[in-house]
Amino acid sequence: MAETGSQLPGIVVTGASGRMGQMLARSVLDNPATRLVGAVERSGSDWIGRDLGAAMGGSALGITVTDDAEAAFAGADAAIDFTAPAATVDFADLAARHGLVHVIGTTGLAPEDIARIATAAKQTAIIRAGNMSLGVNLLTQLTRKVAQALDEDFDIEIVEYHHNRKVDAPSGTALMLGEAAAEGREVSLEGVADRGRDGITGARERGHIGFAAIRGGGIIGEHDVLFASQSERIILRHVAEDRTVFAKGALKAALWGQGKAPGEYDMLDVLGLND
Amino acid sequence: MAETGSQLPGIVVTGASGRMGQMLARSVLDNPATRLVGAVERSGSDWIGRDLGAAMGGSALGITVTDDAEAAFAGADAAIDFTAPAATVDFADLAARHGLVHVIGTTGLAPEDIARIATAAKQTAIIRAGNMSLGVNLLTQLTRKVAQALDEDFDIEIVEYHHNRKVDAPSGTALMLGEAAAEGREVSLEGVADRGRDGITGARERGHIGFAAIRGGGIIGEHDVLFASQSERIILRHVAEDRTVFAKGALKAALWGQGKAPGEYDMLDVLGLND
Amino acid sequence: MAETGSQLPGIVVTGASGRMGQMLARSVLDNPATRLVGAVERSGSDWIGRDLGAAMGGSALGITVTDDAEAAFAGADAAIDFTAPAATVDFADLAARHGLVHVIGTTGLAPEDIARIATAAKQTAIIRAGNMSLGVNLLTQLTRKVAQALDEDFDIEIVEYHHNRKVDAPSGTALMLGEAAAEGREVSLEGVADRGRDGITGARERGHIGFAAIRGGGIIGEHDVLFASQSERIILRHVAEDRTVFAKGALKAALWGQGKAPGEYDMLDVLGLND
Amino acid sequence: MAETGSQLPGIVVTGASGRMGQMLARSVLDNPATRLVGAVERSGSDWIGRDLGAAMGGSALGITVTDDAEAAFAGADAAIDFTAPAATVDFADLAARHGLVHVIGTTGLAPEDIARIATAAKQTAIIRAGNMSLGVNLLTQLTRKVAQALDEDFDIEIVEYHHNRKVDAPSGTALMLGEAAAEGREVSLEGVADRGRDGITGARERGHIGFAAIRGGGIIGEHDVLFASQSERIILRHVAEDRTVFAKGALKAALWGQGKAPGEYDMLDVLGLND
Repeated sequence: MAETGSQLPGIVVTGASGRMGQMLARSVLDNPATRLVGAVERSGSDWIGRDLGAAMGGSALGITVTDDAEAAFAGADAAIDFTAPAATVDFADLAARHGLVHVIGTTGLAPEDIARIATAAKQTAIIRAGNMSLGVNLLTQLTRKVAQALDEDFDIEIVEYHHNRKVDAPSGTALMLGEAAAEGREVSLEGVADRGRDGITGARERGHIGFAAIRGGGIIGEHDVLFASQSERIILRHVAEDRTVFAKGALKAALWGQGKAPGEYDMLDVLGLND
Repeated sequence: MAETGSQLPGIVVTGASGRMGQMLARSVLDNPATRLVGAVERSGSDWIGRDLGAAMGGSALGITVTDDAEAAFAGADAAIDFTAPAATVDFADLAARHGLVHVIGTTGLAPEDIARIATAAKQTAIIRAGNMSLGVNLLTQLTRKVAQALDEDFDIEIVEYHHNRKVDAPSGTALMLGEAAAEGREVSLEGVADRGRDGITGARERGHIGFAAIRGGGIIGEHDVLFASQSERIILRHVAEDRTVFAKGALKAALWGQGKAPGEYDMLDVLGLND
Repeated sequence: MAETGSQLPGIVVTGASGRMGQMLARSVLDNPATRLVGAVERSGSDWIGRDLGAAMGGSALGITVTDDAEAAFAGADAAIDFTAPAATVDFADLAARHGLVHVIGTTGLAPEDIARIATAAKQTAIIRAGNMSLGVNLLTQLTRKVAQALDEDFDIEIVEYHHNRKVDAPSGTALMLGEAAAEGREVSLEGVADRGRDGITGARERGHIGFAAIRGGGIIGEHDVLFASQSERIILRHVAEDRTVFAKGALKAALWGQGKAPGEYDMLDVLGLND
Repeated sequence: MAETGSQLPGIVVTGASGRMGQMLARSVLDNPATRLVGAVERSGSDWIGRDLGAAMGGSALGITVTDDAEAAFAGADAAIDFTAPAATVDFADLAARHGLVHVIGTTGLAPEDIARIATAAKQTAIIRAGNMSLGVNLLTQLTRKVAQALDEDFDIEIVEYHHNRKVDAPSGTALMLGEAAAEGREVSLEGVADRGRDGITGARERGHIGFAAIRGGGIIGEHDVLFASQSERIILRHVAEDRTVFAKGALKAALWGQGKAPGEYDMLDVLGLND
């Protein structure tokens, strides 16, 4: 797998011309513990055959964007893949065949896609997560554990802050955190969610999980999980500082996966929090 | 007005047997810059004729609770009054007659009550506010000014935290802050308030003022006014640390009023912020 | 152990005349899941022989403060004890003899005291902690785990807020959190602590753990543990809402201990977080 | 001044090849209320004669970088200038001659530079500030006013968060906020500053102003001004969301200055807060 003459894991990036693909490529290039060894795009992209660095508006990198995924994968230790379900399942097969770690940030996978990925994972390590931010994954895990440790004397509230262009409330991540809290308490979130609190609501119901959504300016994304009793409060808070956080999480996963046994993993495994 | 032999202003407290009246009395007693010189209750209260200290469950203070407000007011420099409209307008007359500073925290005053208070204020200084917390009054003033200074590139959101027994959302204070923001922008709050944000809301509308209410445990009361642009955020935040904050504000008003010309004042005057 | 005719665990409080003892007694009385069955003071206290309720300035409770700890312990299911080392080791012996759960919040125990407590714990359940707040104990545990999960790309900072009468900085709890972070990273706190940052400090050193102490007004106690990378931040935050939080933690421990096997436990056991 | 055929103010940017100059140029280009009409660099720069857009690594803008400031200024309504003192005083003369609004973000000006700028300001509007962020300037003003309104029952603390490469503590902005607080109280900051709090400090001294510096990850810059009494807290908080905030402030100043009488102004004038 690893190229001779180098200790650093070689990473191939798929969907290299996209916004996320470019961010991934830059993250690999910026990380002193990794080498970028390939950039894959689908056939027909006008990036095919061009030098990746030049195509991204900078100086040449000596890496030609290719639609020959097989060749690109053959020379790599890991593939990072935020593309689309149809492409991702093919990449999983390739990764299995060549023994690469496959990091999947693709969303919208159907059950049959997930089944194909599971098959591929019998031969190589595949790491998949809906949100690659280390912090959010960690926060989800902590939320579950704290909700389990504390009884209903602690009211749980999820508060999130996002920019003014966001069209839905609460955020998907807030709902994921709410699900984790409900799991910790062994209840269904649906039965206890308090959303859109407004007007004469009456006293808060014991055991409920509240949500509040704040929207303003350019806030990238902040999430608070509040546990409040009569005498103390615990707050678990996550702040996304910049938009590269997802790329960095994926890269961490690719490094963690080196040498791991075949199987399906998620970011909690990467963080060592799946006990 | 002031008793001979003492520099410290003498304060009379009305409604002395009530929860607020007792808190006021204690605040006066605890403040080294004031003396408690009278405790008034309505006729028929079983506290009449008792020593105030003993009635509050402590040691004697040498102050007998009385229903003779005239006598009590005659020997005082200020009256602090969180009672009911009918009593308050009579107290205002008494204060005018005896030249006392009258601090009014009574709520629910009708226009005719306010007119009678205005008449009394021709003869003495009367300070009246719906919320006697220094901090909240200051925050309201700051909110108005900041809303005026910043244009609609800054989204305004009011976020409040209260205990789980609170039955309405947003809090009255949050709405007061929202009103101040709307005044600063010279718009009507009604036309721009975003309350109970939930579901597919679409992007935030420019110029709107959002509200979010968090409820949990024993939180006394916290208010944030957020001004968020694409590149920066200003937050004006108030935290009530304990429930004595209203009594302390009233006492500060009573002291500030000493020597002031007759007229109607509010907490912003006390704070020196009415420019 | 438990009195006949009642399902509710009976609690005896030691050091009943002290500030903490009174707070403990009130917490037991206020908790619908417990009964207060005894109040112990040392011989010579002028509370001995008085009704506890009256001595605390309220109405009679039918519980006489006693210096006969043996008799008081004999009729109880648990003893809550925030006294002094010499008394505490005797109470541990008594608890062992009578099979009571012994909850120890006493600080300043010497190694020989701890050894005697360990001996007593062979016969009954003893729960001991330097800080009985559920939240702070939980935060300590979370801090250790998060520090372990994240690498040194995340800078750790401990920020604490306390009232203006506090004489030391950082707080003992802040240092405890710092110790937990250092343990998670398998380093010695001493070697990496950045305290009192001021002046031309140079860039922050990788792997260091910073401390900041804010002092103001009546803040009861707030602690933040910050983990900050280039692209995201996680904050674990604890806020003490009122001063009863330690009493409540002790009471929770007393209830948790009912029916537990003999042994030494801490608040992490009570929280179910000692995995 | 303004070019015929357009209502939008035309802006010239000085120091166009620098990091700040480029950010300024982009901000002007991105703002629908302004036109970029000139880009000035010092003689000898290899950007002279190149198209600004191409030089910045993008597509051509039709604006040639020039060292002929006189010609560039002649066709503009405002100049935005974050260069060096020697250049800035010359630009002030040019601005005076051509009647342009001159926005100065240059730091390190000597008294004689300031005198020359004052002379130029007799003929045109010059806006100068050490920090062009609207929010920080507003916060400074609010801090002064709140410190003036509240007495020493409120402890003042300045808390700042910055990235881990910052070499000094507290930040210059934190010190500026501290100065504003001290001015509001009519004391000298030097006499009351509490910096680097650590160890056995004793109780906080009344009237002091405390500073705390937190350093971690990529935090751009956050400042809290805390006013804490026994019963309430007010926090004035600023968060820099991205690094363009200074450019945006300068642009706002350039627009505000259109049509203003000659004179010296600062960001508080731009914000309408200099009363």
